[in-house]
Amino acid sequence: MCRWLAYSGSPLSIEALLYRPEHSLIDQSLHSQLGAETTNGDGFGVGWYGSGETPGVFRSVEPAWNDRNLRELAEHVESPIVFAHIRASSGTAIQQTNCHPFRHGRWLWMHNGLIGDFQEVKRDLALAVDPSLYPAIEGSTDSEVFFHLALTFGLEDDPPAAVASAVGLIEAVGRDHGVEHPIQMTVATSDGRRVWAFRYSSEGRSRSLFYSTDVPTLRELHPEVEVLAEVSDESRLVVSEPLRDLPGAWNEVPESSYGVIQEGQDELLPFKPTHA
Amino acid sequence: MCRWLAYSGSPLSIEALLYRPEHSLIDQSLHSQLGAETTNGDGFGVGWYGSGETPGVFRSVEPAWNDRNLRELAEHVESPIVFAHIRASSGTAIQQTNCHPFRHGRWLWMHNGLIGDFQEVKRDLALAVDPSLYPAIEGSTDSEVFFHLALTFGLEDDPPAAVASAVGLIEAVGRDHGVEHPIQMTVATSDGRRVWAFRYSSEGRSRSLFYSTDVPTLRELHPEVEVLAEVSDESRLVVSEPLRDLPGAWNEVPESSYGVIQEGQDELLPFKPTHA
Amino acid sequence: MCRWLAYSGSPLSIEALLYRPEHSLIDQSLHSQLGAETTNGDGFGVGWYGSGETPGVFRSVEPAWNDRNLRELAEHVESPIVFAHIRASSGTAIQQTNCHPFRHGRWLWMHNGLIGDFQEVKRDLALAVDPSLYPAIEGSTDSEVFFHLALTFGLEDDPPAAVASAVGLIEAVGRDHGVEHPIQMTVATSDGRRVWAFRYSSEGRSRSLFYSTDVPTLRELHPEVEVLAEVSDESRLVVSEPLRDLPGAWNEVPESSYGVIQEGQDELLPFKPTHA
Amino acid sequence: MCRWLAYSGSPLSIEALLYRPEHSLIDQSLHSQLGAETTNGDGFGVGWYGSGETPGVFRSVEPAWNDRNLRELAEHVESPIVFAHIRASSGTAIQQTNCHPFRHGRWLWMHNGLIGDFQEVKRDLALAVDPSLYPAIEGSTDSEVFFHLALTFGLEDDPPAAVASAVGLIEAVGRDHGVEHPIQMTVATSDGRRVWAFRYSSEGRSRSLFYSTDVPTLRELHPEVEVLAEVSDESRLVVSEPLRDLPGAWNEVPESSYGVIQEGQDELLPFKPTHA
Repeated sequence: MCRWLAYSGSPLSIEALLYRPEHSLIDQSLHSQLGAETTNGDGFGVGWYGSGETPGVFRSVEPAWNDRNLRELAEHVESPIVFAHIRASSGTAIQQTNCHPFRHGRWLWMHNGLIGDFQEVKRDLALAVDPSLYPAIEGSTDSEVFFHLALTFGLEDDPPAAVASAVGLIEAVGRDHGVEHPIQMTVATSDGRRVWAFRYSSEGRSRSLFYSTDVPTLRELHPEVEVLAEVSDESRLVVSEPLRDLPGAWNEVPESSYGVIQEGQDELLPFKPTHA
Repeated sequence: MCRWLAYSGSPLSIEALLYRPEHSLIDQSLHSQLGAETTNGDGFGVGWYGSGETPGVFRSVEPAWNDRNLRELAEHVESPIVFAHIRASSGTAIQQTNCHPFRHGRWLWMHNGLIGDFQEVKRDLALAVDPSLYPAIEGSTDSEVFFHLALTFGLEDDPPAAVASAVGLIEAVGRDHGVEHPIQMTVATSDGRRVWAFRYSSEGRSRSLFYSTDVPTLRELHPEVEVLAEVSDESRLVVSEPLRDLPGAWNEVPESSYGVIQEGQDELLPFKPTHA
Repeated sequence: MCRWLAYSGSPLSIEALLYRPEHSLIDQSLHSQLGAETTNGDGFGVGWYGSGETPGVFRSVEPAWNDRNLRELAEHVESPIVFAHIRASSGTAIQQTNCHPFRHGRWLWMHNGLIGDFQEVKRDLALAVDPSLYPAIEGSTDSEVFFHLALTFGLEDDPPAAVASAVGLIEAVGRDHGVEHPIQMTVATSDGRRVWAFRYSSEGRSRSLFYSTDVPTLRELHPEVEVLAEVSDESRLVVSEPLRDLPGAWNEVPESSYGVIQEGQDELLPFKPTHA
Repeated sequence: MCRWLAYSGSPLSIEALLYRPEHSLIDQSLHSQLGAETTNGDGFGVGWYGSGETPGVFRSVEPAWNDRNLRELAEHVESPIVFAHIRASSGTAIQQTNCHPFRHGRWLWMHNGLIGDFQEVKRDLALAVDPSLYPAIEGSTDSEVFFHLALTFGLEDDPPAAVASAVGLIEAVGRDHGVEHPIQMTVATSDGRRVWAFRYSSEGRSRSLFYSTDVPTLRELHPEVEVLAEVSDESRLVVSEPLRDLPGAWNEVPESSYGVIQEGQDELLPFKPTHA
């Protein structure tokens, strides 16, 4: 399993997001409380939207807690949208190309969870990836194949529909192979303007996922938290597990639902796989 | 491009093979003379047959010339069959799972050269891999797909026939995609008893490959070379480029041919792809 | 803090020592129970005595639990004396030269614990290292300076006396700098024939250390443990924390004492720093 | 030996500096033409001045030519002062703490060359480092000790005088130890406002060093070079070897001299070690 964080809001340094909170993602890399594993030391990755055409991605096979380059980067990069992910491998190789977030053009993708019995279903799923996208799969994870399935089903046009189709296919292929619980997932994806976050599992007992309370309310509840003065009213975090022990700050994303973080009103909607 | 070495003979330390010769493979990692690239610094690997059921494989993404663990291992491991490979990536990621030699059960495989326009033909070739073998592909190189094709076509039963079929398929798929020169290769493979070495390319201008003159003749020619006193009469090296500047020591493997190093008489035979 | 294991006995594969026990050192790298830190993921090292003049040392900055090369090495190397160490950095850089065991000629050294306020006392301690040894210090840890102090005081001639002198100096220098608890240590060292293991701390509350019950007794107590049938009567393990939950198998090394594992009767003696 | 580049001028992306020129530093990491070694693959580093109090530093032990994170960083970081260095180890360990540039507060430092017989003189030089700075030495290179000597002699107040004193000491200590040529150096250092570049060697045959012709002249000579339109008139590069084959673009820094790149007129002055 893994832990992740997605931020959208006023430009913030990665350092403020990754290192400053008490129970930060860096701390979770050593002592996760809600994860399936307490240690998430099998590599990490950070993605952000900066001046370039495509988002920046920094991925490493070292544990996040001891990576000096991550710390340097975190202090020097600010961005309105930041993805960060720490990995606990479920068996696949520890290599950069297996670290999240994955990138395709302007899109980032990260995943916590797994495709059940992936070795059994991997070939069928890879064959369902659009032939033009197939050679872009560089690593050996279920998460990267999942991303390329979502791209195949139109992620760039309609993310919720594309993810629903990809999950529907994964469930169908899994069931054909006798897999009891074909998918377990929390997923975040972004095009640099909006962020979508999904929580779902075939068994209906999904990995934890939380979103932060709106900033104006948080400021009233916790005037002492300095970062709240720095960020805009619309800033929002979505996290695998709470970063601070702040009463009223974290709200569970309900089972089988997804949220959209965007300019104006954010949304929280039900998620249902599409079976062809 | 890459450089490689295959040894079969009396148990010898990896250090004697990799470090002691003047123009050793380690030296070639910095200054190859015959390779397509002078620097082969994108990772390396060593495979050997020891006490275990399967051969040992040590692979790293660091340049071979500065890897201390390789040096330690080399000094402490002796084996009757040793494969060593230094990599110059033609673009695919620098990661352990892209380093040679690859292993399947008792089999080792390493390759110098390339599958032409691999991104174009990758999916078709991967689909031709036996479904039970497909999930075992961990990296993103042409060489690993080529190995799994050879396994699919019966490498474990009849290596020359299996390689001929795999190459035939690669050429057919390449030509379907309009690739002028579908394959360029020198390949070594072993089951721990025999070693097969192939030299072939679609264009008929293959990467260099040499085998060493038989040991009794070499001892007469060069009584001053100490290692020749240590090794058995049947010991043999196959290399991408000569390790020492010893007159009479190195013989070019002819175009479109393969050799078998085995107990008793070694063999040198013509190689021709099998087109289905 | 760190965790370590020292084995002396019949030649055994590193794999049998590192991977097979239930609560193996590999498992402890993720979930230590008695360590100051639960995760020991800041690099590791293995040392063993083989055919060469000097022991082999394999060290890496990756976490031990996910290092494939360690697994390969472990399956292919057997040795009558094996040192293994997993590191949890107390702040110094994650680099091979900071990983244990350290080596000097035929000697290996590994340490769990710390020199108090090391940044304060580092220069004075480094100046006390023999000038001929000073340039051999490659990393930045307290443990490596400690090793070179022990060498300076005659480790190669009389290990207990040399360690007592080194600890005496560390305590004297520490107290000069107002350090309350100048040293905390469990240390193992070997010349390839004997193994010495020390447990001591200035505050009298030392890190845990255990030695295994003699093999004949263990075989009677636990006839079901297969590895006991393979190893000689004189085989012995010294460990930071027990590898298996075997009643009667583990004995605490008393505070301020050291043991010698050797041919014939092993010894357990009091340890007292020598103050000049 | 190594290769390096120092840029001062209008904020420019690291990518424009490192990757775009024909004979870029990345290209030099594989095929240096003027260096003592053709391959500089033993790690690299980049330093830049951004929003933080201290400059950012990104250092890695991988070869620069295949490091994906360097490429990502290079595309997303712009800075008015950039240092970049590629390393060819003369024997010391390949580790991040041995990669340049080194940092102390707001200061960066990088070096090409060597301290002669460093293992002989290392202890005496380290003892001359200010005791408060001594513990900050993390690696094992001559270059880092040299930097700490310059800091000891007042680098932060008067860089040319401090470097002259440090070199004077290195020459004196070297000669005491019978070293024929105690130092060989090109050095760049900066406080984020000015850049100083030194060229000197005890033997009077120093490593190559070049500075770029002023931008207005270059624009006239080479109107086709696009980057010249982007940068300010005062922009300047100092490099170990020319990045492009542009007639009139590169000027050799004379033997035993140093330059200062600053607002207003840059300076080029003689350099002479100060012997105490």
